[in-house]
Amino acid sequence: MPIMEVKILPLGTKTASVSEYVVNAVKVLNKNDIKYELTSMGTIIEADSVECLFDVAKQMHKAALSQINRVVTFIELDERIDKELTIEGKLKSAQEKLMV
Amino acid sequence: MPIMEVKILPLGTKTASVSEYVVNAVKVLNKNDIKYELTSMGTIIEADSVECLFDVAKQMHKAALSQINRVVTFIELDERIDKELTIEGKLKSAQEKLMV
Amino acid sequence: MPIMEVKILPLGTKTASVSEYVVNAVKVLNKNDIKYELTSMGTIIEADSVECLFDVAKQMHKAALSQINRVVTFIELDERIDKELTIEGKLKSAQEKLMV
Amino acid sequence: MPIMEVKILPLGTKTASVSEYVVNAVKVLNKNDIKYELTSMGTIIEADSVECLFDVAKQMHKAALSQINRVVTFIELDERIDKELTIEGKLKSAQEKLMV
Repeated sequence: MPIMEVKILPLGTKTASVSEYVVNAVKVLNKNDIKYELTSMGTIIEADSVECLFDVAKQMHKAALSQINRVVTFIELDERIDKELTIEGKLKSAQEKLMV
Repeated sequence: MPIMEVKILPLGTKTASVSEYVVNAVKVLNKNDIKYELTSMGTIIEADSVECLFDVAKQMHKAALSQINRVVTFIELDERIDKELTIEGKLKSAQEKLMV
Repeated sequence: MPIMEVKILPLGTKTASVSEYVVNAVKVLNKNDIKYELTSMGTIIEADSVECLFDVAKQMHKAALSQINRVVTFIELDERIDKELTIEGKLKSAQEKLMV
Repeated sequence: MPIMEVKILPLGTKTASVSEYVVNAVKVLNKNDIKYELTSMGTIIEADSVECLFDVAKQMHKAALSQINRVVTFIELDERIDKELTIEGKLKSAQEKLMV
């Protein structure tokens, strides 16, 4: 399963607080019933296919852009074909090695 | 016009040189007749729509993944609706202000 | 307080699994007694100053590079001067707006 | 030689145009007599050491933050120890393979 992180940065928002724009983008995931994790630096999303991930990333970008004149969206897509990738699995693998 | 930068990072390659994977991804752009600029840190792409940009980003990612078991792709999408964005225009705007 | 996210990508690792390199970098944070949160896509770090954050980012990069010939490190630094930024505060602000 | 790309994103600016902030950050490089290339999506910097690169990145971030309440700075650091990395060398290597 591919995993994607999306970071929404609205430009020209007048104040330095931008979470209302980010939240509008994240609501897209609730509507699409997509598995995600919100962190302080972005939104990590897990889905069955890259097509699905790119589709929700596009919707998130457009949701933010419906509120403001300019949006810069950063996306990181991690996909491997030799092994299943999941949000929990990746994190657990690192945490276990940290314990040693 | 939206602008996108794509960075392809193949993981688990035998050597530290990865340009052959990057190049396979960039060839997708030639096939699709898309306007792009290759830099030492990524590929900057200009297209009429976000749909088109996401479509070629997906193709680039998949082209790299056809050669190796894992690919991490970083994407930055810059779109504004109050003004036309172009690769040349953005660069020129910064260069002119640098001169002052 | 500034917040930083660090993503370590070792290139040329022979296998697609790279968490052992990431973990070596994260151990730097334990040694420095720095507040951080590990996610499935990176490490989010909070510190009193940008100087401290850049210093640990450099140490993390070098720790990974001590094991492998090439490392690409992605860093995102978020700093604002009108308001305190914390990992918990940023996340809570977004989560509360999501509830509405 | 390590290479770094820096992207400066000021948040809370009055308009969607942000190049004046970016330019103030880039002027730091002129003052420090650092080799760099301006692209439409960021600034690519080459220096003898990671220490030097982190130092100018910090100065660039602070230069932008002196004009606005919040700045998000994205940094990508590429370093390999088995071979010299240069802006021209990396680009040429990809361009040559594209020709084939």
